[in-house]
Amino acid sequence: MNVHYDHIIFCQQESLPHEDFVIATYAMWMKTTDWLRRAGAIAVEQTTGTWVPVPHETPEVRRRHVGRVVAVYPVPSYEDAWPADQEEKTLIVQIAFPWKNFGHQIAEMLSSVQGNISMAGKIKLLDLEFPESFTAGFSGPQFGVQGIRELMNVPERPLILGMIKPCTGADAKTTGEIYSELARAGVELIKDDELIADPEHAPFEKRLEYCLEAGVKAEQDTGNKSIYFVNVTDRPDRMLAKARRAVELGATGLMVNVQATGFGTIAMLADMAEVKVPILSHPCYAGSSYMSPHYGIGSNLALGKFQRLDGADIVVYAAAYGKVGAIRERYIRTAQTLLSKMHDLRPTWPLPAAGMHPGMVPTVMRDLGPDIIVGCGGAMHGHPGGLEAGVQAILQSIDATLHDVPLEDAAREHKELKQALDTWGVFDPNKSIFELTQ
Amino acid sequence: MNVHYDHIIFCQQESLPHEDFVIATYAMWMKTTDWLRRAGAIAVEQTTGTWVPVPHETPEVRRRHVGRVVAVYPVPSYEDAWPADQEEKTLIVQIAFPWKNFGHQIAEMLSSVQGNISMAGKIKLLDLEFPESFTAGFSGPQFGVQGIRELMNVPERPLILGMIKPCTGADAKTTGEIYSELARAGVELIKDDELIADPEHAPFEKRLEYCLEAGVKAEQDTGNKSIYFVNVTDRPDRMLAKARRAVELGATGLMVNVQATGFGTIAMLADMAEVKVPILSHPCYAGSSYMSPHYGIGSNLALGKFQRLDGADIVVYAAAYGKVGAIRERYIRTAQTLLSKMHDLRPTWPLPAAGMHPGMVPTVMRDLGPDIIVGCGGAMHGHPGGLEAGVQAILQSIDATLHDVPLEDAAREHKELKQALDTWGVFDPNKSIFELTQ
Repeated sequence: MNVHYDHIIFCQQESLPHEDFVIATYAMWMKTTDWLRRAGAIAVEQTTGTWVPVPHETPEVRRRHVGRVVAVYPVPSYEDAWPADQEEKTLIVQIAFPWKNFGHQIAEMLSSVQGNISMAGKIKLLDLEFPESFTAGFSGPQFGVQGIRELMNVPERPLILGMIKPCTGADAKTTGEIYSELARAGVELIKDDELIADPEHAPFEKRLEYCLEAGVKAEQDTGNKSIYFVNVTDRPDRMLAKARRAVELGATGLMVNVQATGFGTIAMLADMAEVKVPILSHPCYAGSSYMSPHYGIGSNLALGKFQRLDGADIVVYAAAYGKVGAIRERYIRTAQTLLSKMHDLRPTWPLPAAGMHPGMVPTVMRDLGPDIIVGCGGAMHGHPGGLEAGVQAILQSIDATLHDVPLEDAAREHKELKQALDTWGVFDPNKSIFELTQ
Repeated sequence: MNVHYDHIIFCQQESLPHEDFVIATYAMWMKTTDWLRRAGAIAVEQTTGTWVPVPHETPEVRRRHVGRVVAVYPVPSYEDAWPADQEEKTLIVQIAFPWKNFGHQIAEMLSSVQGNISMAGKIKLLDLEFPESFTAGFSGPQFGVQGIRELMNVPERPLILGMIKPCTGADAKTTGEIYSELARAGVELIKDDELIADPEHAPFEKRLEYCLEAGVKAEQDTGNKSIYFVNVTDRPDRMLAKARRAVELGATGLMVNVQATGFGTIAMLADMAEVKVPILSHPCYAGSSYMSPHYGIGSNLALGKFQRLDGADIVVYAAAYGKVGAIRERYIRTAQTLLSKMHDLRPTWPLPAAGMHPGMVPTVMRDLGPDIIVGCGGAMHGHPGGLEAGVQAILQSIDATLHDVPLEDAAREHKELKQALDTWGVFDPNKSIFELTQ
């Protein structure tokens, strides 16, 4: 039986009709011990109302629409036996929200599960669990892992991505030349930098024309097929217009800085009948919502679940071993969120980036599996044998890993891989972790 | 003369051609003393490129597009004379970004000024200074302070807002009845709760029909004019469709949870030729980006500048003296950002909310001036004489303040105000601050 305490409904996980609720897990910090009242206040104020009963908040309204406090776990600490007031305690709290309150959209869901409470005390949203009835209202990725494998005729191995550098400043014609170099060298997926959208010196349409032309020529000459992810980041209505125009011009992919444009903008593009191309999502600005230990949302949501729900086919994010320094559990969790079964949503490709090189490929494939996209920008451009040798070295490393061949053995037969290993070595994650704990 | 150091341009404020740059001010925390290199890395990596020179990053490209390090101020501390490495230091850093890199849009600007760096270390964006050439690319508020004054025929005093409660759960017909009560009582601006968008039990169109009808009848019967801000929060393309439909149905205002839908969505609506109604912006979810002391962006940006740039006519946010507990400087700064001269952008109404009552009105008007909207939800509904008396008490308090009459004196002539003061007292901010510092 559920217990009513003021206007709050506390219930056990087992008594909850899961299909009707999205379950939010929070970390909270409090100096008092009145945890139930605080958790209950969130459940009530983020659904039906305020503490003061108002005339139209009937028992029936409340029963159908109020949030339920499913769990409150105090995180144990030395003072836990009888926590004194004034000592800040950490709590893990689960609240179930009737999803019909917000319907099948991310913006109103965020307004509910991390709305006003985001401004009123230390609270971080760690996770959201979606029932099938909720995810059924989202199309999710149009292509996902299998779809892009079919586009590229690559059935099993990781794919390779490169980006156009310099980030900004080059004109459209030069951008096309850089694209040509990458495509001819065998880079399969080629994306704009997140810092170039539609500047005067390299307008989006011109970039698209030059790069598409370069891609077609590269394929004719070398057989190398490539997809160009052109950055359409802009005000949403202008993104819609750009996506339409891009498809008219023959675009093969789109890119969106979704953390800055807002969740919902990828689905907006993907659900347009004309847009039958994969969409790549860039994480810039994401740290503003996930980096704080005490506020905002988990990276598993910002980089993972929300992206898949929104329909990203590929998600760029920071690998654990590179220059950005993500935590290994977080980088694996994000990939899992994108790849593992989530009702009927297609899986999204994780693209762990920053600091990757051929000697690191086996570790990342062991962590995340073969359904990943490898971005080795620096290690492709910086390979002693040049860009093409850089691409070959990555492919050789992938192939060796898929066949359980140690990289050192494979390097005996492949000079490009050998050069790469001589330059960057074979990455050892255990050594890396060992060093961190010294 | 600017000094080149590696690929970095350091310059003095006076040598910067201000019209070409948006100047970002950050707080950063570092354990080393290599401040120039870190600031320089941000200026380079968030504009033209990487540390490694790439072939197409010519000196000309760099000169035109690279960020400039304008200032680095170490925040003094006891260890400041010769700061040891390993001691974390706080730095205030200013970097000038050539705005043509991102153009006239907020999403790509955020991708540049707080993009990848948001994920790579402690850094908070404190402010952005916009030149006129940049703000000229934005329409800003359609109505702003003067426009809404003209709509309401209220030339000088603060306006009064109320919201429909319960937040969610009531059906559309009941919502219309609640609207009617508010409008008849003299509430001028009436908004949906941020938690109701378009649920099955109270669809947006039905709510709109009932509330508009209630508003027309209330005006016929009582002469009280009101604007209904209907919440159109949704995926951007659906927001566009809803805004069009709302205007067809005779909507008088729109409301957007812009922190969740993304900056750019208000301008998207406001720039539609058909949408000639004011737009109210709700702050829910904003804490996810501004609450952390070390990450994200300042509340003056999230609640202030970005909203005005995006075209919000009214911005709801937390008052300093209410239950949410905003800092006084922050709440005044946000209002100033909305109201003070910003090139040709119209001023936006601040709507400081949460915990307001008639006895607090003089303090808030002294803090922010007369161009504010007063939201006294609890104090209107909870007035001993009822809702209409609650509205009268606020108007009496506003009138007394505009004429420099102490509230206690005004209460002698107005029984509604007297009842309010008897219930909630006269708020004394100095007492409040004094208590805080005990």
